Amino acid sequence: MYNHGGDIYRNRVKIDFSANINPFGLPETVRRALSENIEDLSAYPDTECEKLSRAVAEYEGVSADNILCGNGASEIIFNTVRAVMPKRALLIAPTFSEYERALKSVGCEIKYHTLSEENNFNLTERILPELDGTDMIFLCNPNNPVGNMIDEALMDQILRECEKRDIFAVIDECFMDFVPNGYSAKKKTAVIKAFTKTHALAGLRLGYMIGDSKTLEKIDLVSPRWNVNAAAQLAGIAALSDAEYLKKTKKYIEKERIFLTDKLRKLGIKAFDSRTNFILFKTGKEIYAPLLKKGLLVRQCGNFRGLDDSFYRIAVRLHEENTVLLSALKECL
Amino acid sequence: MYNHGGDIYRNRVKIDFSANINPFGLPETVRRALSENIEDLSAYPDTECEKLSRAVAEYEGVSADNILCGNGASEIIFNTVRAVMPKRALLIAPTFSEYERALKSVGCEIKYHTLSEENNFNLTERILPELDGTDMIFLCNPNNPVGNMIDEALMDQILRECEKRDIFAVIDECFMDFVPNGYSAKKKTAVIKAFTKTHALAGLRLGYMIGDSKTLEKIDLVSPRWNVNAAAQLAGIAALSDAEYLKKTKKYIEKERIFLTDKLRKLGIKAFDSRTNFILFKTGKEIYAPLLKKGLLVRQCGNFRGLDDSFYRIAVRLHEENTVLLSALKECL
Repeated sequence: MYNHGGDIYRNRVKIDFSANINPFGLPETVRRALSENIEDLSAYPDTECEKLSRAVAEYEGVSADNILCGNGASEIIFNTVRAVMPKRALLIAPTFSEYERALKSVGCEIKYHTLSEENNFNLTERILPELDGTDMIFLCNPNNPVGNMIDEALMDQILRECEKRDIFAVIDECFMDFVPNGYSAKKKTAVIKAFTKTHALAGLRLGYMIGDSKTLEKIDLVSPRWNVNAAAQLAGIAALSDAEYLKKTKKYIEKERIFLTDKLRKLGIKAFDSRTNFILFKTGKEIYAPLLKKGLLVRQCGNFRGLDDSFYRIAVRLHEENTVLLSALKECL
Repeated sequence: MYNHGGDIYRNRVKIDFSANINPFGLPETVRRALSENIEDLSAYPDTECEKLSRAVAEYEGVSADNILCGNGASEIIFNTVRAVMPKRALLIAPTFSEYERALKSVGCEIKYHTLSEENNFNLTERILPELDGTDMIFLCNPNNPVGNMIDEALMDQILRECEKRDIFAVIDECFMDFVPNGYSAKKKTAVIKAFTKTHALAGLRLGYMIGDSKTLEKIDLVSPRWNVNAAAQLAGIAALSDAEYLKKTKKYIEKERIFLTDKLRKLGIKAFDSRTNFILFKTGKEIYAPLLKKGLLVRQCGNFRGLDDSFYRIAVRLHEENTVLLSALKECL
């Protein structure tokens, strides 16, 4: 099986650059909340996620009726598709692969809009006519695995078109909270976010959708009960109680992303501009295996539609870890 | 919202008899595994559940290819329905309500076979002709909320009929591991089990299906990635390392179930025979609110198809807790 990043279970890994997780690890508030409440994990979780939804709503500046929590963003993607049951969807390529898996799981036909490398995989107005004849679209902003953002004016144009044509638009903003001066589509359409990456809760699974309450009710109806485990609910609430953690993260990631991008380019590697906590780059030399030999796991991008095995994605990690990667890369090239 | 049991989040509860969870709480091995590995929860879980599946396979005496883990039994129920996509399913009534929710979520028509109270809600051969024209059936054995078991010879007959008619049969054995001298259908059809109740992992969510590898692959294809969180995987492995916990549980629960049933009957309450860790009973007097006033939460069964609000389900808990419930009940009647 070709893996998604983060497969530290079948590899000997010292530093994992393949999963785009906050390098600071669990917030201290989460660590404490978990260790102090282990016994409570034997009871059923709150199937309505009442406290958590309220905390997330406050963080997002919306009402709790506009929040639906799920077992990671991936479950929300699947359940949204099952609630919408689209016939023909539009996806960009490359992008996160779970949209395709979810759409295929309900037999939906998929139209791909391939982004061009020459244009640094940026989305352009060329997507607008492609909306023709579709009833659902997923856009990842910033886009995984590139890290670039969709121009805000273009996003508005796309969402207006979708509204006009009755196309269900989902914007995945899982990496937006790493972006200084980002923007959100949450006031305009259904948006998916997660604690997975921003708060290093990947192991516990916690994602949510911000959307109108009618849409969320429909999705809830096709969701299994108790789908958000009690540890994730506890951790999510604790994570939001520490606003400093994310502020510190944002600053640090930006500095390190600039540092890494610059150094990669100085090594003669084609690194694409990213606005978030990972970087896509291209090199003629195969580096996956040699890096893994040194205990460094990177994401080879051959199974991203629209890319091939000359592309790699790395997470922006702690300075000392990034430095280790750069030295190892230098030796490989 | 009419709740399922276990809603300790919107009630002041001292002892929860509404959720059928092992009264011993988390096994010590699980408590230790969790508290020693909190930091690891920041990484993505193993999406293939490799170690956990191997441990479960060993416990069940099958190959790891015959195990598929999920985010609680409820997720497996939904994803199985999504993989099978039945047109017309047969359900018994009363039974666990997630089968109905899952089937309705894919627009499946449902035929209900209502069990009669006069016959203590036991399944009989009368179900066989009802299989006509259906393509899927869920049977809960022991059945929730009654606690009775399907006669093994009848089960064999049903499964033979299903095979003959190409009906996908799922047997939910989530409460079987509490039964002394129980039996399993796992060598004959798809079986769902969970750690939720037997090992008090309700908060962490961990269920699994035992089935042929082709069926499991189909279900895996419609499952979101990373659906089994890392804490649940850790806990499941740790839980299985302590075989004594379940042995002790089984003995204790049987003794307490006999004690509780006997005392309920002595109070003039109609208690149904159960083989597992909960008891269904009927009383003309409304006892939900008065018991809750005393901090005791029981499951009122009005939203079980085939029952009404004169039915209550209680979990078999620790002796001192059961005694508290009996005294409170006495006062209510």
